[in-house]
Parts: sequence; structure tokens; C-alpha cells
Amino acid sequence: MTSHQAVPTLDDVAKAAGVSPATVSRSLNSPGLVSKSTLKRVKSAVDALGYTPHFGARFMSAKRTMTIGAIIPTMENAIFAKGIQAFQERLHSLGYTLLISSSSYDPEIEAEQVRALASRGADGILLIGYWREERVYEFLKQRNIPFLLAWAFAANNALPAIGFDNRASMYQLCDRVLAMGHRNVAVISGTTEGNDRASNRLKGITERLKVEGIDLASVPIIETPYDIDNGADAFERLMRLSDRPSIVMCGNDVLAVGAMQRAQEMGIKVPDDVSITGFDGIELARVVTPKLTTVRVPHSEMGRRAADELVRMVESGDVGRSQELPSEIVVEKSIASLV
Amino acid sequence: MTSHQAVPTLDDVAKAAGVSPATVSRSLNSPGLVSKSTLKRVKSAVDALGYTPHFGARFMSAKRTMTIGAIIPTMENAIFAKGIQAFQERLHSLGYTLLISSSSYDPEIEAEQVRALASRGADGILLIGYWREERVYEFLKQRNIPFLLAWAFAANNALPAIGFDNRASMYQLCDRVLAMGHRNVAVISGTTEGNDRASNRLKGITERLKVEGIDLASVPIIETPYDIDNGADAFERLMRLSDRPSIVMCGNDVLAVGAMQRAQEMGIKVPDDVSITGFDGIELARVVTPKLTTVRVPHSEMGRRAADELVRMVESGDVGRSQELPSEIVVEKSIASLV
Repeated sequence: MTSHQAVPTLDDVAKAAGVSPATVSRSLNSPGLVSKSTLKRVKSAVDALGYTPHFGARFMSAKRTMTIGAIIPTMENAIFAKGIQAFQERLHSLGYTLLISSSSYDPEIEAEQVRALASRGADGILLIGYWREERVYEFLKQRNIPFLLAWAFAANNALPAIGFDNRASMYQLCDRVLAMGHRNVAVISGTTEGNDRASNRLKGITERLKVEGIDLASVPIIETPYDIDNGADAFERLMRLSDRPSIVMCGNDVLAVGAMQRAQEMGIKVPDDVSITGFDGIELARVVTPKLTTVRVPHSEMGRRAADELVRMVESGDVGRSQELPSEIVVEKSIASLV
Repeated sequence: MTSHQAVPTLDDVAKAAGVSPATVSRSLNSPGLVSKSTLKRVKSAVDALGYTPHFGARFMSAKRTMTIGAIIPTMENAIFAKGIQAFQERLHSLGYTLLISSSSYDPEIEAEQVRALASRGADGILLIGYWREERVYEFLKQRNIPFLLAWAFAANNALPAIGFDNRASMYQLCDRVLAMGHRNVAVISGTTEGNDRASNRLKGITERLKVEGIDLASVPIIETPYDIDNGADAFERLMRLSDRPSIVMCGNDVLAVGAMQRAQEMGIKVPDDVSITGFDGIELARVVTPKLTTVRVPHSEMGRRAADELVRMVESGDVGRSQELPSEIVVEKSIASLV
């Protein structure tokens, strides 16, 4: 028997009782909200394993507000809407109310919102992506407020995150683009400064192009904030180059839909004259004509799992566990095959 | 001199100082955040008029958290995103942090979120539309928490609201539809129960059709929750009627975009075979082909004004003042002229 096995965890109880860790937490902290039969199973498992909740968990349960905070970079274009909606619905079913802030991609505003949510007694906080000033993480640790990251996953980062690999996902899309015969690639990237998702998506493209032996100095790359009009303007600049790209890979669906709009206005046919790809797989990508080739990220699944994990962290006092979720390449008519 | 003029209000000070009421509040409550020259002007006006803040305002200022809450029905499809983004940006410039909740159009969840925001110390709360259980309004009044409604305006309702007239706006769109020769109208409405915006938009159509002498019993009306797929399914049902409509008027852009998508899948040409209209004027309406004829509501202006007014209420203790904002009919290629 290892020392790990010697101290039963909340997960061990969950496994033994055949319920989720969140259900074990709720059975211990809010038994009134759990069915009698479930309560009985959890209690049997607790007794059999000799489980005692952490001191941290007990301490936290005393000041529980049943409120979870989430800070997203923007509410516009519904980039985060589906994931956050699923996050909220799962939180609701677990008895928690969600309070959301939107930081306008501004690190100062995000830091201020972290402080506001902490002052307002949030039991736990969901943040998007890894990159922010160390002092924000230090503040959360000092205040003993559990936090979880989403919309990103990096195997080499110890911070708890539930998301997908932005770099690898875009690398795979670029792989598909190259397999369809495209060599003259241009990129419209979201602003990479302070945004690890945008930065890693761009890296996914450039790394794959490099492997293909394409000279990166010859690849036009425009960085611009995520916005339909910005995507449109960047597309027009790319189309005015003497050496027109055969494909414009965009950092997200919002930029790509802007590019498609401007193509239509300029009389440029997609995909006959130029191919366009996006990233995210939001509603916008499927209402445009032609439908957009994109990377569909697991919005709802990510939201649900983030809710389960953050509530587990809040209720058990355990450290967060990262989970990588798969993304999916969705090939639609916005891309032409040149082979 | 009337008794009204005898007691100078915060607004009188603002007018005399040539600044906004919010600036007067900030000068009184958080002078450190106001420029010296502004502070001087405000103080002169306060002295000249003999202004004293209400007892209520002083009481509230003592427990101020500089946090404003907003509860929106959904984050999906970015229906409320642009308005709330503008609301938040203005609040930020006034020194307030916004916490948002999304109720999934569920009155029970909304009531729970009102309680959560109150417990978390929100200085004021923004709600969407008029209809909710009286106990929610009573709770807010008992707790002395200023609240403001948005996305709706009804001249005959005393509750403070900053928005547009959903009925009159849709009435005007229907007016335009009739002027373009359409008589065979079908409607896809959002769920009207518990939703005064959806209900009033539907009323705007039926009232205008009645004036035209059209038998309402002959008008197919489908009610369904706002969702692209629901709009698509409702459209298909309408197109399978033996007496096909010449136009499908939808309760919002999300339903209309769903209708346009299904039209494309069914090989039905918009607007040659059938016309489609929406309501809201969100990004979705302009990225589809053809662009959607819709009612553009003043998202950003509404958000900014709501922020100014709610902060004024919080800082002055004054009752809220309603403001009606204009909406705009936007005729695009999704509607055919039959005359």
C-alpha cells in the first residue's frame, strides 16, 4: 500500500459510492440537496474508507456563498457564450449561481474583476487561458480562492485547466490545408500580446508551414483584435498584395466571417478565388454562405466539465486537475481542394 | 418659485456645473477620481444652489461596493452582447465593476440571481424587460437596491426603463412589409409567456395586420424559443402549408437566420420565393446572404445611457427616469417588393 492509498480522497469515496465527486461534496456539505438513497451510498463509502474531508475544505465550507465567478474576455460575437451557458447550467444544477465579468481583453480590467469577485465572496473563479500577470495568481492563492482555467490546455503547465490545445488544433487544420494543395498561405491572427490562445493558434500555423519547408518570411501575417470589421479590412489588404494567397487562415470565426463578407463585397468568390478558414466553430461559422471550414472546440463539454471540476475543488479543497478535450476539424465549402 | 425648484436636485447641480449627473455624484462620493477643475466647478454649483444629497444617498454611499449587477436572459447568439458591452464600458469609466448573470429565460433562476447579486452587495441592478413576479420588485425595493430596466420602454409603466418600444417598432416594420405589397404574412415569434419584448413584438404585427383588414385567424403564427434551429424548423413547417406565405416575419434575428438557413437547405430562394425579416440588428443579420431586413435597436446607446442612469440613481438616491430610444427599420435584400 502506497502512502497515496493510505489517505482516502474524495475521489476514492466517489468511486466506491459510484457517484461523482461533486455528489460526494454535496452529500457532505449540503445533504438536504441529495436524495436519501445517494446519501446512504455516500455515507457507506465514507465509513468503509474512513474518509475525512480536508481541513481546508471544512474551513471553506464555513464561508461558502454558493456563488462562482467567471471572467471572459468579451461577450461580443458569442465566442464564449455556448461554453459559459453550459458552465452556468451545470453550476445551477449543483446549486451554485454564476456571476460573469467581461474584461474587454484588458489585463488591468481582468485583475480588477478578480478583486471584485473575491470581495463579493466568490467561492471559486473561472478564467480564460493561462497568460496573466503573476500577481493575479498570487492574489487568488493568498485569498485561498480556487480557480480553474478554460479554453486552453498546455501539458507542461501546472495550473489547473480544462480546455483544448490551441496550438495542436491549428497545426492540424494547417495540416489539412496543406494536404488540399495550398502553399500560398496568408494569416489573419487575433492580437497575440497577452493572449496565449491567439499566440498558440498562430504558432500552430507557422510551425506546420516550417515543417513543410515554406519560408515564413514570405507568409503575410496580419494581427488584429477579434472583430468582424477588422477581419474584413485585413482580408482586403491581403487581396491587394501582388502575390495573392490561395488561402487565408483566420485566428477565429469572427475574423473569418469578416473576411468572407469583404470577399463578397469585392466580388471575390470563396472558395473559387480564395479559400478561408476560421477557428472556434460558433454559430456564425455555419450561417454564412458558403459554410466556414473551422476547428470546432468542445464548448458545452468544456463548460460542463469546468463546472464539475471547479465545484469539486471548492467543496473538497483538493487541487484542481487539468483535462485536455479534443477539438475537431470541420471541413466545409469555404475551402477549395487544389489537388 | 415652485416647491420642485425649492429643493435643488443633483441634476440641477449638474446643469449648473455643466457636467453629467454621474460626475456630480463622483465629485461628492469619490472626489479622488475627479479632476481638480471639475471638482471646483461642481463645488461652486453645490454652494450656489445649496444642494444637499438625500439621506438615502448618504446612507447608500456608506455601503457602496462599486459593483453593478445585470441579469440578461441569455448569452447565446450575442443578442444582448453589444448593449451589455457598452453598459460595462461606461460603468468602468465611472469606476464601477459589472457582474452579469444569465437566467436562461427562466423566472425562477432570475429571481435567484437577483437575490445572489443583492447578497453580494450590488449597488444597483439592471434587468431586461418589465415582466417578472411582483415579489422580485418588492424584494429590490425592501433592500433599497436601485434597479433599472432595459430593452423595453412602455410609456404607461412607472418602472424606470431605458429602451425602445418593441410593439411600435415591429408595427412599423409590418407597415413597411404591407407597403411592399405583402398580404400573405406568417410569423415565427419568440416564446411570449413571461417575455414582454416577444409579446409586444407579436402584438405589433397582429395590430398592424388587423388595421389592414387581414383576418388574423388566417395568419399562421408559430411560437418557439429563440434559437437558430427552432427558427429553421418553424420555417419548414410554414413552407409545408398548402397556402404558402409570401413573407415570414420573425420575432428576432436568430429565428430569422434559422429560417434563411432552412430555406437554403430546402432550395427555397430568399427573397424570390419567400421574404424573411428579423428584429434586433445584431451581427448575425448582416453576415448572412442576402442580408437580413430587420429592426435595428440602439444597443450601444442603450447600454451607455443605462449605465449613466443607474449610476446616477445609485449615487444620488433619486428615482430612475425612463428614456425611450428610437429603433430603425433596416431594409436589406431578404425582402422582395411585390408592388
